[in-house]
Amino acid sequence: MQNKTIMQRLDALRSFMSEKHLDAFIFPSTDPHNGEYVPDHWKGREWISGFDGSAGTAVVTARDAALWTDSRYFIAAAAQLDGTGFSLMKERISGTPTVAQWLAQTLRDIPMPRIGLDGMVCSAAMVENLSDELAEAGSFVVDTSYDPLAFIWHDRPEIPINPIAIHPLEYAGETAQSKLQRIRRAMADCHADALLVTALDDIAWALNLRGCDVHCNPVFVAYLLVENDSATLFADKRKISQQVAQYLGSIGVENAPYEEVPKRLAEIEDGSIMMDAETVNHNLFHAPLCRVVVAPSPIPAMKAVKNEVEIEGMRNAMKRDGVAMVRFLIWLEKAVAEGEQTEMSIDRKLTQLRAGQSLYKGLSFDTIAGYADHGAIVHYEATADTDVTLQKQGLLLLDSGAQYLDGTTDITRTIALGPVSDEERKVYTLVLKGHLRLQNLKFPDGACGSQLDAVARAPLWEHGLNFLHGTGHGVGAYLNVHEGPHQIRMEWKPAPIHAGMTVTNEPGIYVEGKFGVRIENTMVAMPYMDTPFGSFLKFEPLTLCPIDMTPVDFSMLTPQELQWLDEYHNKVYDALAPMLTAEEKEWLGRATNRKAGK
Amino acid sequence: MQNKTIMQRLDALRSFMSEKHLDAFIFPSTDPHNGEYVPDHWKGREWISGFDGSAGTAVVTARDAALWTDSRYFIAAAAQLDGTGFSLMKERISGTPTVAQWLAQTLRDIPMPRIGLDGMVCSAAMVENLSDELAEAGSFVVDTSYDPLAFIWHDRPEIPINPIAIHPLEYAGETAQSKLQRIRRAMADCHADALLVTALDDIAWALNLRGCDVHCNPVFVAYLLVENDSATLFADKRKISQQVAQYLGSIGVENAPYEEVPKRLAEIEDGSIMMDAETVNHNLFHAPLCRVVVAPSPIPAMKAVKNEVEIEGMRNAMKRDGVAMVRFLIWLEKAVAEGEQTEMSIDRKLTQLRAGQSLYKGLSFDTIAGYADHGAIVHYEATADTDVTLQKQGLLLLDSGAQYLDGTTDITRTIALGPVSDEERKVYTLVLKGHLRLQNLKFPDGACGSQLDAVARAPLWEHGLNFLHGTGHGVGAYLNVHEGPHQIRMEWKPAPIHAGMTVTNEPGIYVEGKFGVRIENTMVAMPYMDTPFGSFLKFEPLTLCPIDMTPVDFSMLTPQELQWLDEYHNKVYDALAPMLTAEEKEWLGRATNRKAGK
Repeated sequence: MQNKTIMQRLDALRSFMSEKHLDAFIFPSTDPHNGEYVPDHWKGREWISGFDGSAGTAVVTARDAALWTDSRYFIAAAAQLDGTGFSLMKERISGTPTVAQWLAQTLRDIPMPRIGLDGMVCSAAMVENLSDELAEAGSFVVDTSYDPLAFIWHDRPEIPINPIAIHPLEYAGETAQSKLQRIRRAMADCHADALLVTALDDIAWALNLRGCDVHCNPVFVAYLLVENDSATLFADKRKISQQVAQYLGSIGVENAPYEEVPKRLAEIEDGSIMMDAETVNHNLFHAPLCRVVVAPSPIPAMKAVKNEVEIEGMRNAMKRDGVAMVRFLIWLEKAVAEGEQTEMSIDRKLTQLRAGQSLYKGLSFDTIAGYADHGAIVHYEATADTDVTLQKQGLLLLDSGAQYLDGTTDITRTIALGPVSDEERKVYTLVLKGHLRLQNLKFPDGACGSQLDAVARAPLWEHGLNFLHGTGHGVGAYLNVHEGPHQIRMEWKPAPIHAGMTVTNEPGIYVEGKFGVRIENTMVAMPYMDTPFGSFLKFEPLTLCPIDMTPVDFSMLTPQELQWLDEYHNKVYDALAPMLTAEEKEWLGRATNRKAGK
Repeated sequence: MQNKTIMQRLDALRSFMSEKHLDAFIFPSTDPHNGEYVPDHWKGREWISGFDGSAGTAVVTARDAALWTDSRYFIAAAAQLDGTGFSLMKERISGTPTVAQWLAQTLRDIPMPRIGLDGMVCSAAMVENLSDELAEAGSFVVDTSYDPLAFIWHDRPEIPINPIAIHPLEYAGETAQSKLQRIRRAMADCHADALLVTALDDIAWALNLRGCDVHCNPVFVAYLLVENDSATLFADKRKISQQVAQYLGSIGVENAPYEEVPKRLAEIEDGSIMMDAETVNHNLFHAPLCRVVVAPSPIPAMKAVKNEVEIEGMRNAMKRDGVAMVRFLIWLEKAVAEGEQTEMSIDRKLTQLRAGQSLYKGLSFDTIAGYADHGAIVHYEATADTDVTLQKQGLLLLDSGAQYLDGTTDITRTIALGPVSDEERKVYTLVLKGHLRLQNLKFPDGACGSQLDAVARAPLWEHGLNFLHGTGHGVGAYLNVHEGPHQIRMEWKPAPIHAGMTVTNEPGIYVEGKFGVRIENTMVAMPYMDTPFGSFLKFEPLTLCPIDMTPVDFSMLTPQELQWLDEYHNKVYDALAPMLTAEEKEWLGRATNRKAGK
């Protein structure tokens, strides 16, 4: 059956392309700020193709159309693209051409085809990579100056204009003036007179402001230009209350219209401007006429190190989040016994319990609740089509988190809903071993996550098991749940880990068609000891919630590992008990006491 | 007091420089083959400066002279440079200029100074780095075309012309024809029609030939040019016996004079030649007129994976080396008790015991025997000036190895010569823990050493200890004791580890002014298990020699670690006992039995 809506949109696009002499147009999944979640205004790939997955690239020529996405979305994409005229291109499947190869083949009869791509929604590095690939595949002209959606998407959602809020010093722990001073010092170190900041969480951090323009991320759509003696926030006036305007004035930040940033960049005549090609979009990257210093933004490394106030805030947020988790776990035991609960219904219950906590601002990402074989799908998100009823057996993988004014949480627990198989018990225990070993590792200040990663994996490798995702990522302080620049993973990520940096600890194992296990706490690196051999760090677990002990094979744990488990559980009990009812406290006592269950 | 010899050499060099209009000349420590040990012919830096350390750079201008070296050599260099006119430049000490900075300062009155450097004794990458540094410091012309030593060093040693020997198939395990075929396939993969091989161990491996031109490395001075249908060994005719000449003919390799390689490179008209800028010297790298494919040589990765015959040879060599080590340890117990033994005298005894083993060909590196505080000097090599008498207390660090026709060994043992301090016992036990953990790690095929490194360090980090050298390096099969491309170390070394690759396991701790501990075995990666999660590898220890248990605090070892220690010691006993006398066997029984000593 034909999808008339999409076909009409393609017609409109093709008229536009013909008018502008474009032989193809590419729609990526990114936006001008290169964020993880894209506001509706920039969901152009979804609008033109009908495919609503989080990752994909749509390419349209005068006669053809194709959409590239990865294996997570093959089934959904095939269904959504049916009748649209788009062919599905399965990424990383042998025989699938790249976008560049496909364009070379599809446009082979046209000499020097002109390829359109909105340079505002792709990073400079991404456009450069694509241009390199196209140059390898044939002779093309890439034109990045058009946004056809501005002309053909008539009911296009506006760029969000939600109000900006001041993030109080009692949670931020450092004034924006102090942060701007540090940023200017970093600019001076790179011999730059200005810095363009386009990553929304970097802007929010630098100015101690927060927003609600983006799903799960407490940020607002804006650009920030920091110069030696001034700074400009490019953001729609309607977002800025009188109070925020006053605050901006007090920290020496002017306000200018969001759209004016390219013009203002071109007006800088003297000196040099620093930009990060990996995050700044192509059009802004090429807007300045002055010298450009291409360097990583200094802000991610500053933001990654939490100050004492932020760490204390995170500890407090984790207590309230832990209370919500404990209440949920108590409820879940009964609810599963009574039946009728599904992956989606428990997600709603958990969200409701979190929302009841003070300082709650929303979820920090969409909950992953994967029961049994769904737990083995790493990026599983239950939909009405896939939702299943939980049974009184097997494992439930539950990865969730929330935004609180004083901190962001990210926790995964794998919960036995009843009897588990021997294989489930073994894998669960091995994942727990990996988690405990990384949790209790001590390491030199400045080590990078790639050096530490194997510590969590070694017990899994011993049994011929492995997982392909990262072992840990930074977590914002009431900011994005995924933060850089450091990561703990097999691939090389050289960003050093210093005291004050948060990082998750989330080893997992996914047995296809059967079950998945992941155990995740958010941790913070803290000083351990200084010796003639250097400064050493340890990890403090921030997340406070019992780790299910019913699926553990205790005979597989060493005395040291049992002690670590008990230490963590004692910490959880001591932190949460004062906030619980007598009945809840009793449950927590059992859940955190290895010997109680026996 | 003036050193007239050096001053006369400097005069001769300055006359040469003046004649050639050179304002400075740089002498590095490298040779045309970029090897670890430099034949005397190329010890130009030593000849011109009088400084004989393994690392250093001498720079001479019309009026000044300076020598850069690292902290290992500060004292020796200061003494050796006294009266020569050379100033000592202490590398990595704050305030020390780089060579480029020093030249910019020293030659500031000369417009566009001309810097000489023999491009035959520096890798292409090294010259490029130096040129970049010079360009940053000022305006210079770099001339790489002169070897002044050819004119001014009258009694210069010849390029070695020792005979080349055929390495029999019973030890090599793969014919040279088969290796050349694999090399040609790798060339084709890089679209190259020729490959220039300049690393002496790569040449020896590819052709199944060995030599004795270089200290401790069983290689011979030559170049190898592999083309699609032919191959040429550039080596002095006097090295090639009739038998070797016949053999070369049989594997399709022509012989040409050593000096002819630049001319022959320039004669290649069609196609392209593949060269590794990191190892090929600057002049040869720039000799071809045809297209150059700049890529890592494919040989190190091939050579690193030992075939079954080589692995069996290594196992056999390790048995004989283990017998020599055991006899040495038995002798040492008594000799130390009797007194009068020194670091140098025990080195001679150990070498003598190894030399008594069949297939012995020499040492694989200069023995490091560091007693007490000397053990804390990582690259210590006793000299008549530093040599000390061993006492009946404290720790002796002994790092040694040999070349046998069937394999190369590299072993470090730290031996308690009597009572040890609590600190020595604790550090020794922690190093042993690190060693045992890496030895028993299982890991995915293709993991790199940077991923595995932390496993050996974690127990040390736990106590605020660390070491700054690598944890492991590849070991040749009757070839160089240091082999790439893989390494286990903190820095990023992406070369993957596959089954058949040898690697050492040598964590250590060095407590300055007190003692040093290192425990090293050579291991080989072997298949462990294949699962739906991939192929996994384990390490088999090749080195067979008891690890001294008298300085162990067994209470610090886990049951698992005790079991690993016993497993290793049982293996050592079973392998060596059949080759020992009854008395030696009895000693080994005690040395490998944790409970016997109690």
